[in-house]
Amino acid sequence: MTDLWLIGIGTGNPAHVTLEARQALRDAALVLVPRKGPDKADLADLRHAILNACGSRAPVAEFDMPVRDEGRPYLERVRHWHDEIAALWTRAIATARPQGPVALLVWGDPGLYDSTLRIAARLDPRPRVRVVPGISALQALTAAHAIPFNAVNGAVTVTTGRRLRDFGWPEGTDTVVVMLDGELSFQRLDPAGIEIWWGAFLGLPNQLLEAGPLAQAGPRIVAARAAARARHGWIMDTYLLRRR
Amino acid sequence: MTDLWLIGIGTGNPAHVTLEARQALRDAALVLVPRKGPDKADLADLRHAILNACGSRAPVAEFDMPVRDEGRPYLERVRHWHDEIAALWTRAIATARPQGPVALLVWGDPGLYDSTLRIAARLDPRPRVRVVPGISALQALTAAHAIPFNAVNGAVTVTTGRRLRDFGWPEGTDTVVVMLDGELSFQRLDPAGIEIWWGAFLGLPNQLLEAGPLAQAGPRIVAARAAARARHGWIMDTYLLRRR
Ligand SMILES: C[S@@+](CC[C@H](N)C(=O)[O-])C[C@H]1O[C@@H](n2cnc3c(N)ncnc32)[C@H](O)[C@@H]1O
Ligand SMILES: C[S@@+](CC[C@H](N)C(=O)[O-])C[C@H]1O[C@@H](n2cnc3c(N)ncnc32)[C@H](O)[C@@H]1O
Repeated sequence: MTDLWLIGIGTGNPAHVTLEARQALRDAALVLVPRKGPDKADLADLRHAILNACGSRAPVAEFDMPVRDEGRPYLERVRHWHDEIAALWTRAIATARPQGPVALLVWGDPGLYDSTLRIAARLDPRPRVRVVPGISALQALTAAHAIPFNAVNGAVTVTTGRRLRDFGWPEGTDTVVVMLDGELSFQRLDPAGIEIWWGAFLGLPNQLLEAGPLAQAGPRIVAARAAARARHGWIMDTYLLRRR
Repeated sequence: MTDLWLIGIGTGNPAHVTLEARQALRDAALVLVPRKGPDKADLADLRHAILNACGSRAPVAEFDMPVRDEGRPYLERVRHWHDEIAALWTRAIATARPQGPVALLVWGDPGLYDSTLRIAARLDPRPRVRVVPGISALQALTAAHAIPFNAVNGAVTVTTGRRLRDFGWPEGTDTVVVMLDGELSFQRLDPAGIEIWWGAFLGLPNQLLEAGPLAQAGPRIVAARAAARARHGWIMDTYLLRRR
């Protein structure tokens, strides 16, 4: 039975790496690293920089991520994509024949809006999975702004841009954290009484932060995001909304 | 202006500490450590062990946590308690006269159900605050069980035991993570169709895990929690509920 270690590496700052993650990268017998498209090449470089900084001497097997088949319905497309990645991992592991645990570097925390655990469950034979937690984008966001995640005794809903668009402000919560939002979906909300804390490229040298009442900060964020995206060719961002 | 660093140290496993946290503990000029009651003495020891393991040579100022005045209404009581802690920090810093940043070790992540940021905002003069993110109990929970935090494209509500008791299952979400629950409030829910993943003392040597359909796993968790609490004199636990 293969041991598969899913290792959270944080969200861009190599110092997000935990001592547990560093030790796991040293103890692994093989490290699988996805080769991304040219616009995200700096993130592949970051993974190699982390491996070096951690003193990992394990051989690295790179694999190309399959292209998503946009023709199918959403959930079927995701499932098909996961099957393809599982097949790529199986091939990479079979080629390398590691005499010990196989490690995968996972962006942020492996549990949060990440498909690695679901892909691992598709491997045949099924591996023994270990998860090493990592600093997530939502923690990088609240830390960069030095704000609490929750109000005193309050609830927080973590959700996606798509859900915020489709369902609006979630019931019964005064704080919403939005991830995976390509369209800054807060623009659909009535901004009255809402504050926003936004961050892009959190933990990376080009980190951007904006905050304030949504009515004023919203348009600034729309402009800042468009400018940063034009400059870098891509962007990753997340934000927290609090309603009083 | 004092620099105050709130440093997340994870939830019991000293290897949760990030490289950023370790460096910050080395660079601090003073470390404030709360002295807890006798039942949590092992956690104060853990803080000292982390400081040693990180190679911190900063002087340590211990302070006694004030006793909560149970006589007042909830929010007023919390505010009064925060004022008292702020006064204790001010006194400890004034006594030690550090020539550089003051560090506080914060359990888990400083943003998540923690009052340190709110207490820091009460200091006079107000310090410059830096937050170093740390592995939270909810990440320790999902990692220990090797489960994802969210369903595919799903929302997650993070809430307290009190809110789960008062308001029931939060609307529009298929996953609920419950913290600060002294009474295992899931017992108030209809268990049909709900799965639970529970963890106590996560990251510590006496970590406990239970999982399964709520109807079957719920009573096991009630028994395991009572037994562990009797054995140790106290307990800290958290759980994730998923509805299909
Ligand atoms: C596929 S999810 C992965 C999340 C990751 N597992 C984590 O724990 O943060 C990608 C989303 O996370 C957020 N994200 C990840 N890294 C980020 C960063 N460095 N800055 C801002 N947002 C980030 C964005 O919302 C992005 O759409
Ligand atoms: C005051 S909150 C602090 C949370 C902390 N800041 C974090 O990021 O995890 C304390 C609650 O966190 C949860 N918790 C903290 N550490 C835990 C551990 N090691 N195992 C299980 N639950 C824990 C429990 O629900 C507990 O009631």
